[in-house]
Amino acid sequence: MYHLTALVTLLALAFYFFTCINVSRSRTRTGVKVPAMSGHPDFERAFRIQMNTLEWMPIFLPSLWLFAIYISDAIAAGIGAVWIVGRIVYFIGYSQAAAKRGPGFAIQAIAAIALWAGALWAAVSRVV
Amino acid sequence: MYHLTALVTLLALAFYFFTCINVSRSRTRTGVKVPAMSGHPDFERAFRIQMNTLEWMPIFLPSLWLFAIYISDAIAAGIGAVWIVGRIVYFIGYSQAAAKRGPGFAIQAIAAIALWAGALWAAVSRVV
Amino acid sequence: MYHLTALVTLLALAFYFFTCINVSRSRTRTGVKVPAMSGHPDFERAFRIQMNTLEWMPIFLPSLWLFAIYISDAIAAGIGAVWIVGRIVYFIGYSQAAAKRGPGFAIQAIAAIALWAGALWAAVSRVV
Repeated sequence: MYHLTALVTLLALAFYFFTCINVSRSRTRTGVKVPAMSGHPDFERAFRIQMNTLEWMPIFLPSLWLFAIYISDAIAAGIGAVWIVGRIVYFIGYSQAAAKRGPGFAIQAIAAIALWAGALWAAVSRVV
Repeated sequence: MYHLTALVTLLALAFYFFTCINVSRSRTRTGVKVPAMSGHPDFERAFRIQMNTLEWMPIFLPSLWLFAIYISDAIAAGIGAVWIVGRIVYFIGYSQAAAKRGPGFAIQAIAAIALWAGALWAAVSRVV
Repeated sequence: MYHLTALVTLLALAFYFFTCINVSRSRTRTGVKVPAMSGHPDFERAFRIQMNTLEWMPIFLPSLWLFAIYISDAIAAGIGAVWIVGRIVYFIGYSQAAAKRGPGFAIQAIAAIALWAGALWAAVSRVV
């Protein structure tokens, strides 16, 4: 088993879960009632943070695991940890203002793309 | 292979697929045309049911499989079946009114968090 | 390992990533600023293309892998490639007009359901 990658996966899920809870709390603070998904800029930013994290999950998780299986559990977990850090920076920045979402987004994007590219290189080299 | 967990996974996907079809049917009933995602409360609740199920997929599926691999195929599948039941209760309640979405949500949340916590405990105990 | 399925998975992620980038580019073209998710029909269609691709990811990816593990790496990868083609046809059609999204949607739906049904048949036959 890939214990470090499993651990990083579960920590990534925990952080994602936190972004979901943050949307609920933002509903209470801003008065946007379910099922509405807009109506207050603070709520909309909280929702976009969750959604963007969700949107990257199908890129991040399969790339992370294919990298771990093909290349290295420890390196995959290390890059996965960088992804989580990027997501935390994104959360803090975007919660303050839409213009501050850039740095965290870039960190997590570079981490995810590195996992994807490493896995692709490994898969192609096995098939060819 | 983890046959029971595979079976529960495929049944969970089937139920999720059903919530997607339900959004299409709700468009026909309420007259909300694509690509609009709002305009009628019945449609918005149908869409939120699908979205919330989608939002929990990256928590549920990886936790389910890590639990199955680390601990037990049968126990993972059993808790996964509870998750599906919670999702069905959530679907029925939320389809009627936003205020009735609580019990189903709680059942599936407890099931997903149990899978996550079990997998985390197992992964940590392997690494430490 | 399932090298062909891994390769098709990574190509599917790349195409999904492209639909995400397309939403960002559509924001620039149509002037819809974050965190707003509506305001111009071209932007809303670009967003729905990404969202629909995301919505099908939890159906496609687990079905693809269970099919590969239970039945065949090569057949899974072949059907997975059809799914990607369907997604590309969907992207091109829906980018032009909402009414043109049908054929691509049908292709990817048939491919995903074939993977799901094959995996279900295999899992049930192991359990029973």
